[in-house]
Amino acid sequence: MATMQDVANLANVSLATVSFTINNSKPVSPKTRAKVEAAMKDLGYRRNAVGSALARGRTHVLALLYPALQHRFSPTSVRFFTSAADQARLRGYNLVLWPMSNDAEAVSELTSSGLVDGVVLMEVQLDDPRVAELSGSTVPFALIGRTRDTAGIPFVDVDFESTVEKAIDRFIQLGHTDLVLVDGGIGNQLLGGYGPVARTRKVFGEVTAQRGLSGAIMSGVHSSAGGRELAKEFVASHPETTGVLMMNEQAGPGFVAGLQQAGYRLPQDVSVVAIASSLDIVSMSEPEMAVYISPADELGRLGVDTLIDRLDKLSDTLPQLLIECSYSSGATMGTAPKRKK
Amino acid sequence: MATMQDVANLANVSLATVSFTINNSKPVSPKTRAKVEAAMKDLGYRRNAVGSALARGRTHVLALLYPALQHRFSPTSVRFFTSAADQARLRGYNLVLWPMSNDAEAVSELTSSGLVDGVVLMEVQLDDPRVAELSGSTVPFALIGRTRDTAGIPFVDVDFESTVEKAIDRFIQLGHTDLVLVDGGIGNQLLGGYGPVARTRKVFGEVTAQRGLSGAIMSGVHSSAGGRELAKEFVASHPETTGVLMMNEQAGPGFVAGLQQAGYRLPQDVSVVAIASSLDIVSMSEPEMAVYISPADELGRLGVDTLIDRLDKLSDTLPQLLIECSYSSGATMGTAPKRKK
Repeated sequence: MATMQDVANLANVSLATVSFTINNSKPVSPKTRAKVEAAMKDLGYRRNAVGSALARGRTHVLALLYPALQHRFSPTSVRFFTSAADQARLRGYNLVLWPMSNDAEAVSELTSSGLVDGVVLMEVQLDDPRVAELSGSTVPFALIGRTRDTAGIPFVDVDFESTVEKAIDRFIQLGHTDLVLVDGGIGNQLLGGYGPVARTRKVFGEVTAQRGLSGAIMSGVHSSAGGRELAKEFVASHPETTGVLMMNEQAGPGFVAGLQQAGYRLPQDVSVVAIASSLDIVSMSEPEMAVYISPADELGRLGVDTLIDRLDKLSDTLPQLLIECSYSSGATMGTAPKRKK
Repeated sequence: MATMQDVANLANVSLATVSFTINNSKPVSPKTRAKVEAAMKDLGYRRNAVGSALARGRTHVLALLYPALQHRFSPTSVRFFTSAADQARLRGYNLVLWPMSNDAEAVSELTSSGLVDGVVLMEVQLDDPRVAELSGSTVPFALIGRTRDTAGIPFVDVDFESTVEKAIDRFIQLGHTDLVLVDGGIGNQLLGGYGPVARTRKVFGEVTAQRGLSGAIMSGVHSSAGGRELAKEFVASHPETTGVLMMNEQAGPGFVAGLQQAGYRLPQDVSVVAIASSLDIVSMSEPEMAVYISPADELGRLGVDTLIDRLDKLSDTLPQLLIECSYSSGATMGTAPKRKK
């Protein structure tokens, strides 16, 4: 598609002059206007993307739907977004972050508006009303995350099942037998059955039972204050526990700080590993936390590729892709203490 | 504006039926279709926002322009965004985060597209090409941040000048005479003359000189690893410095962790205060950092109010508003040591 700069080059005028001509924002001489309009015509430049969109049925805008007003946008969510936006740009689209709660009506209004060519969903629930709505619309979509029933649904997601199983086996190798999973809970009722939490709890329960371990679950809000509260609760309620799987990114550093404030040494008294977080978050703590890193950059890119391949009809296959978190060691993982302090 | 639910209620059918009728996504009986279409007509419901936008010249979409691919979206930026989106929702608009670098042509393409009714700019530079472009367009805009020359420009911004002066005077009261300002630098060349950094450096230089203090500036990348690097550099290059103003939110906790790793005690050896950050970030460290809290929620809301007041022609005044950061004490601020360890 021709840009304003192309028009300016062909008409041999400044970019500002093209803008003034198009927007009628400053006076332009009739001769200059004629030159600019001739260049626009030669290049097929469309001055109005909405009119153009109606004619072509395309705006080249993609919406990443995220319930940002209900569910805090975490540092790892930011990575999903920027990676998706970057890939969209490479492929000739603008991806915008559209804050929208998980309700079908809002999705329906957006898809019937004609303002966006396609949508990517995040924060997917096991039974997600948005997916049912999108399945009945003509607007292409892809999920970063997945529903309970994935038949016919294009998605990319973190392989929480495999990641959690590996984390538990790592604790076993270090001699730990009493574990706690800390997550962010369901939080807002709009996120009932939120996929990552539901799947992680299920596999944590199954694998700890299979391996004959003690496994408990704690939940707290997505913040440092939440992490410090969780640390107090952990110290009071789980005196025997020596291993923690922390799947609440924003509470992680606060949890470590709270344990230290309570006099715990890491990893001599308790080992902690972050799940589906990032190196940047875990190195906020001293010592740095061990972490299973979320494949956020990869999934953001693949989610957009999946959508654009469908939009541009480049692929007839149904992409359904799971990627494990990758482990990075950190000084918060050590052998289980013989007797906790 | 009537919603799909209003149509469903009036036609006495389910929301899904209205959606099927509008999107032709599933068969609907002629009788049901007639009921739904009568209700749509009665309520003035528009099935196509693009057609509707052309007719009214309005899409009710606002774009928050943020160079998210060039400049990392910080936790405090997230607060600006969610507060702005929340306020837009309350006033009947959808605010979306539009990642766009600081170049005039991209802004011009957006404003001439007709896809958005107005724009809010973030990450404003002292001489910002986007502001010049917007000033010449007919699309209303508002700045969160401000240019060097603010004549005729509607903006809301943090009062960095007053905040930094107060922070310096707080150090003086505690007996500190040798200070360092840590910031995120200019980073990407697209952010040359980035307002917050430029203004903070200027006032830091002026006030330390006026008060007869030693004042140096250090810069590092916006990450925990960047903070840990800065701590190493600080330990090596500023052995006499006892007070640090940390205006690099994402490096803050890593900086404290790095000082601790190097054997420094806070505040016995060094005092640190975060500038324009949040309680959530500073409580990731143990001990929690003192902080001048960014008025992000307030400014996000006021930025959107400023824009919508202009859009809806509710106000003829030119809003130009500065808000100071508010201080919250933390255990990283103490009296200057007689002799640094």
